[in-house]
Amino acid sequence: MIQRFSNNPLISPRDVKPSRPDFEVLCAFNPGAASYEGRKVLLVRVAERPLQEKGYISTAVTDPVTGELKIVRCPLDDPDLDARDPRIFCYRGVNYLTSLSHFRTAISEDGKSFTIDSKPSLSASGPYETYGIEDARITKLEDTFYINYTGVSQLGVVTCLARTRDFRAFEKLGVIFGPDNKDVAIFPEKIDGRYYTLHRPAAKFVGGLAIWLASSDNLLDWGRHQAVIGPRRGEWDGERVGAGAAPIKTPQGWLELYHGSDENTRYCTGALLLDLEKPWRVIARSQAPFLIPEAPYEREGLLPNIVFHSGLIDNGNGTLDLYYGGGDLQTCGCRVLVEDILRTLK
Amino acid sequence: MIQRFSNNPLISPRDVKPSRPDFEVLCAFNPGAASYEGRKVLLVRVAERPLQEKGYISTAVTDPVTGELKIVRCPLDDPDLDARDPRIFCYRGVNYLTSLSHFRTAISEDGKSFTIDSKPSLSASGPYETYGIEDARITKLEDTFYINYTGVSQLGVVTCLARTRDFRAFEKLGVIFGPDNKDVAIFPEKIDGRYYTLHRPAAKFVGGLAIWLASSDNLLDWGRHQAVIGPRRGEWDGERVGAGAAPIKTPQGWLELYHGSDENTRYCTGALLLDLEKPWRVIARSQAPFLIPEAPYEREGLLPNIVFHSGLIDNGNGTLDLYYGGGDLQTCGCRVLVEDILRTLK
Repeated sequence: MIQRFSNNPLISPRDVKPSRPDFEVLCAFNPGAASYEGRKVLLVRVAERPLQEKGYISTAVTDPVTGELKIVRCPLDDPDLDARDPRIFCYRGVNYLTSLSHFRTAISEDGKSFTIDSKPSLSASGPYETYGIEDARITKLEDTFYINYTGVSQLGVVTCLARTRDFRAFEKLGVIFGPDNKDVAIFPEKIDGRYYTLHRPAAKFVGGLAIWLASSDNLLDWGRHQAVIGPRRGEWDGERVGAGAAPIKTPQGWLELYHGSDENTRYCTGALLLDLEKPWRVIARSQAPFLIPEAPYEREGLLPNIVFHSGLIDNGNGTLDLYYGGGDLQTCGCRVLVEDILRTLK
Repeated sequence: MIQRFSNNPLISPRDVKPSRPDFEVLCAFNPGAASYEGRKVLLVRVAERPLQEKGYISTAVTDPVTGELKIVRCPLDDPDLDARDPRIFCYRGVNYLTSLSHFRTAISEDGKSFTIDSKPSLSASGPYETYGIEDARITKLEDTFYINYTGVSQLGVVTCLARTRDFRAFEKLGVIFGPDNKDVAIFPEKIDGRYYTLHRPAAKFVGGLAIWLASSDNLLDWGRHQAVIGPRRGEWDGERVGAGAAPIKTPQGWLELYHGSDENTRYCTGALLLDLEKPWRVIARSQAPFLIPEAPYEREGLLPNIVFHSGLIDNGNGTLDLYYGGGDLQTCGCRVLVEDILRTLK
């Protein structure tokens, strides 16, 4: 049912040129994907950090006003340092990410072999992105590609919106969901005159990490929030769920491929079918995931046992190409048949 | 600087008739406040629970579809019960509130002696309010009173909007902020053509419980989120901050009285002054709170050391009447001079 690309991982950290000579690329993963002028375009999340010195951990953050990079450097033997998580460390009571992410454009004729830009396409700026920008999702609306992404800063984890027509000039449009919110996937057309999106707020007291729906007149102001699906305790998606990329329109309904993680932090991909006219109505949901971390580049990495797709291209012939992060480290791809997925939802 | 009303607490649980003969009123607190037809109106949060039986803890939840009340009843000696918090208990892995809240209208000629309706004005309904509705804030826009409040359910803690023109007929308008979000305070007029509100999302990884600003064209869809103020570690507002009621327009700026809590969960009231035209700009912020739990009805209660104001009436003569929950239990009031507060902000 899943055809992994034979040249996986498609993009590894070593394939990406650091944005500065004193930086190294830690991860190249979780890409947004689109078709543009007959080619496949990825906006790859490139996570960088300063070249590490012996006895220290260091990371980079951007200044909220000037945009300049600042290096945070901490002695590994400092008792005020907690660096047990490969993604996060805490120093003197402040949480930092171990890397600073930006987006890099990668282009392919066949969707498998990508040419990666030598420079960032979109980088962190302003007060809501000082810890970087992460996990682009791309939705084409008329002739414009809307890119939503996670902005991380000491102010929280928010969702921001940007747009481009050509993957050269990008315009940032600000914060569309306040903290904590990520895994936003905007529908590719209006429904009954409104834009729709899936989003993933974080409910602390109850509710957990569930997928919600919101709608908008202008893509910037969102309302009419409704819960769609939550985690199913004990199942493959028992700890959290989150949207993947923009939903695909099928005669049976909006098909959303979503990620779920379980109590072992294994991330898999399943499917959700939503009513075409009332997308808050769930028609069906995967009992079992169709993409499970099984390949070495999914079972190992910065974190083990992760497939996390944020890019999806509808080939128009009944096949979908999924672009996903393997092991929270590298960019991978696979092909699925829409019909196969819909069959599991019956 | 603070003149507490001499008949505090203004409304105690025993003053409120339960909505059903088999229920008891646990708390009557955190009211929204407005002036209407020359009188002062409060929408008091009335927290009820079933009359408790020996050996059991029980609470009520509403059915998301039918709206009917269901009683949840748990043996106190069940090892699957955790009932250490007076507001919350956990039974068989599910969190419940110890009470179900609705809003009750209370009316006063002098703002001090209130006549309390014998029946609820606004009650929980639908999927986002099964655990009740809490902490109304009222903003008058033209001839309509907009009431935002917290909806609690197993789907999360969200902010909902309703409106009324007469405090008799209420219309619910749905969820305006997804989980977790509370302490919403809508500005009483448009600024540069947009509605504005303060809101309090919950940032888990970083950012904490901070006050944010959003704006809207229609009061239902909100965007342009910006962080305003966060907790100040070690200070009186070091753990969390949240807006109180609608900001007051003064020549110096928008005056927002906000609550902060410290590491001992002491809740106090301080002030924030925001730019009249660019309300995301903080002109000044209280170094010290002006309302501190000191009276017996603030130091004791369901939870100790809490003043939590959600109601505010501008008397138009330089004085403000604050209506607040004391000890998370009862409704209290006090009068402050705008000039006194502004002086502390210089």
